[in-house]
Amino acid sequence: MASRQLAKLDRAHKDAGLHAIAARLRAARARVFEANEQDLARGRAQGLGVALLDRLTMGPQQLEATARAVEHVASLEDPVASRGPARTLPSGLRVYRQRLPLGVIGMVYESRPNVTVDAAALCLKAGNAVLLRGGREAAATNHVLGELLREGARDAGLPEQAVQLIAPGSREEIKELVQLVGLLDLCIPRGGEGLIRFVNEHARVPVISHYKGVCHLYVDEGADVDMARALVLNGKVQRPGVCNALECLLVHAADAPRLLPPLAAALLEAGVELRGCEASRALVPALRAAAPEDYGAEYLDLVLAVKLVEDLDAALDHVERYGSGHSEVICTRDWARAQRWVREVDASCVLVNASSRFNDGGELGLGAEIGISTSKLHAYGPMGLESLTAEKWVVEGDGQVRG
Amino acid sequence: MASRQLAKLDRAHKDAGLHAIAARLRAARARVFEANEQDLARGRAQGLGVALLDRLTMGPQQLEATARAVEHVASLEDPVASRGPARTLPSGLRVYRQRLPLGVIGMVYESRPNVTVDAAALCLKAGNAVLLRGGREAAATNHVLGELLREGARDAGLPEQAVQLIAPGSREEIKELVQLVGLLDLCIPRGGEGLIRFVNEHARVPVISHYKGVCHLYVDEGADVDMARALVLNGKVQRPGVCNALECLLVHAADAPRLLPPLAAALLEAGVELRGCEASRALVPALRAAAPEDYGAEYLDLVLAVKLVEDLDAALDHVERYGSGHSEVICTRDWARAQRWVREVDASCVLVNASSRFNDGGELGLGAEIGISTSKLHAYGPMGLESLTAEKWVVEGDGQVRG
Repeated sequence: MASRQLAKLDRAHKDAGLHAIAARLRAARARVFEANEQDLARGRAQGLGVALLDRLTMGPQQLEATARAVEHVASLEDPVASRGPARTLPSGLRVYRQRLPLGVIGMVYESRPNVTVDAAALCLKAGNAVLLRGGREAAATNHVLGELLREGARDAGLPEQAVQLIAPGSREEIKELVQLVGLLDLCIPRGGEGLIRFVNEHARVPVISHYKGVCHLYVDEGADVDMARALVLNGKVQRPGVCNALECLLVHAADAPRLLPPLAAALLEAGVELRGCEASRALVPALRAAAPEDYGAEYLDLVLAVKLVEDLDAALDHVERYGSGHSEVICTRDWARAQRWVREVDASCVLVNASSRFNDGGELGLGAEIGISTSKLHAYGPMGLESLTAEKWVVEGDGQVRG
Repeated sequence: MASRQLAKLDRAHKDAGLHAIAARLRAARARVFEANEQDLARGRAQGLGVALLDRLTMGPQQLEATARAVEHVASLEDPVASRGPARTLPSGLRVYRQRLPLGVIGMVYESRPNVTVDAAALCLKAGNAVLLRGGREAAATNHVLGELLREGARDAGLPEQAVQLIAPGSREEIKELVQLVGLLDLCIPRGGEGLIRFVNEHARVPVISHYKGVCHLYVDEGADVDMARALVLNGKVQRPGVCNALECLLVHAADAPRLLPPLAAALLEAGVELRGCEASRALVPALRAAAPEDYGAEYLDLVLAVKLVEDLDAALDHVERYGSGHSEVICTRDWARAQRWVREVDASCVLVNASSRFNDGGELGLGAEIGISTSKLHAYGPMGLESLTAEKWVVEGDGQVRG
């Protein structure tokens, strides 16, 4: 099996495969652009929005960035066979944990075709085979990218079956994929609510979901207004279409007369539509009225829900109820409340006085990421190369037996 | 919810709950023994074997050991809120990972009633609520133990719903349990093949299986005969009914004339029935003929399959095909082959010149274990307190935003 061959490969062979893939991508630019034009034309004909078409685009700039990302993965440490600290037990046994590949990873995703290449590069580097099932809207582009991945792998003598693309048809074949017990070791769905639900409902193999980000910023009593303004603007405006963007602003009610007006003014000026609770609208009449479904909504757009909350406990309750376990920020000057936020919020990344946008594998020092897990087991938050491996125990002795 | 209350508790409160549980167990000994007598009487009437009745027994000795195990868990470090090393990024952000409870853990198991108490103690210490569904054969004992767990929790002011017992009826309620998406964060099935399969087939929540151990010892060319004999005897004879006992002996074919006869003699003298391949029977006629199904069998008894293999590659192939990812041992003098074994065998514990019986949380220094995971994700091998938690990212700043 390809996965067992891959597991045995040393770093040099895997990196050679990655460089060959990058070379193939650059050499076959024209084929990629042509296929991408087909996808874009179909998308336009079907009335896809600007944001979706933008994500679908694989032009010269995106292709070069994608090839460079593959080379960057090649430059990262090989996680396979890396060892944790060894302990010597009283019996003289030497015990440590050593990383091994997971085996075969199924990646089910939507829209952006660079994910096809990114995911394949990371899986290969971690010694895994990968099955890629992208979205229908990018079918032509992904088809060409899949060919180039296989050609690159072959150029470097890696098993060609290490990367396999599944042409998107109906959801039935996703169902079949996620029930391949014994063949598939992990499924990573990355996309919208419908896709994630579908995979989790039908999967019989382990799943690590990359689900939506309903991220909150709680501005605490006594918070620095300038800092809060910087955090809310960066979280909402810098790149509203990504999962670590802010979707809801919570403000301490007693301090809201000081805090909310300047924050709202800055957001409105930046073109953000604000949808607030009654108490917030009493302070800033320019806010629209929030509907119940605005809390918990992932807008991915220049829209922000606003709510005044009684205190830290009420903020924690709100986040527990409406958050999606992604990124949750407190802006505070109070040490004890910061500590409670860190301890009590259950999210893949909990931030104190820092933008939610930092919940990202590159920003947090992982080198690269296959996405951001909102599943708690195995990997919670950005998944780098290590998260694409498992850890086994190793015991070395000189004949020890148990008494 | 009980799980959120539990997640916030500090160590002192949780330990007080564990001590209260131990006190309740000792104070209500008579109730436990009486209930256990009912289970044993029913078991005898249903013709359960000696080994099963033995596992079902909760007499004075087992009860005291169980109470002590709870006190031992209280003595262990609290994994919740423990932090990994912090890094300071160029932006000045301080980044680290902090442990948090998983939430609600469902434990589905068979036979031994001490698992009811052990699992509850470990889950509570790690800040999780637990749903316990034991086997029918131990229903009366588990019912009383469940009451005592709740009473102990109440004595110490912990939420009573933190420990809930599900009375065993049909498998239907296991099916319902493992589909409680949003309520159950993890299911740990621990038991025989039928149970594990059933849970994995129906689960919609994450599952970490504690599956069978089909463990091999490969005796390499040139191995020390005395060491090999000690390892095979300890692995097979010391406690044949446990999952880290040996089930199959692989011997390097070219060196088998030197190695196999003394190993076989020692095993036969210890009362082990040996079932070998043709080549092994040519060397030791006392071996019975192995049937194809002997390879991959988990005997849990004084029976051992034997096979001669051409070389290390053939041993690795055999283990890959028939092993269950539990514990795999090589006995060798050769450094390079030991390294290949460590790197290439995919099992929760890979051992060089040490008994398979060391794959155990206590032996490997975890303090206590909820079992041995044969699932690769999140925890592979003995699961201690840390494995009952997740890790979130924490980012501390002084107003940093992303550029």
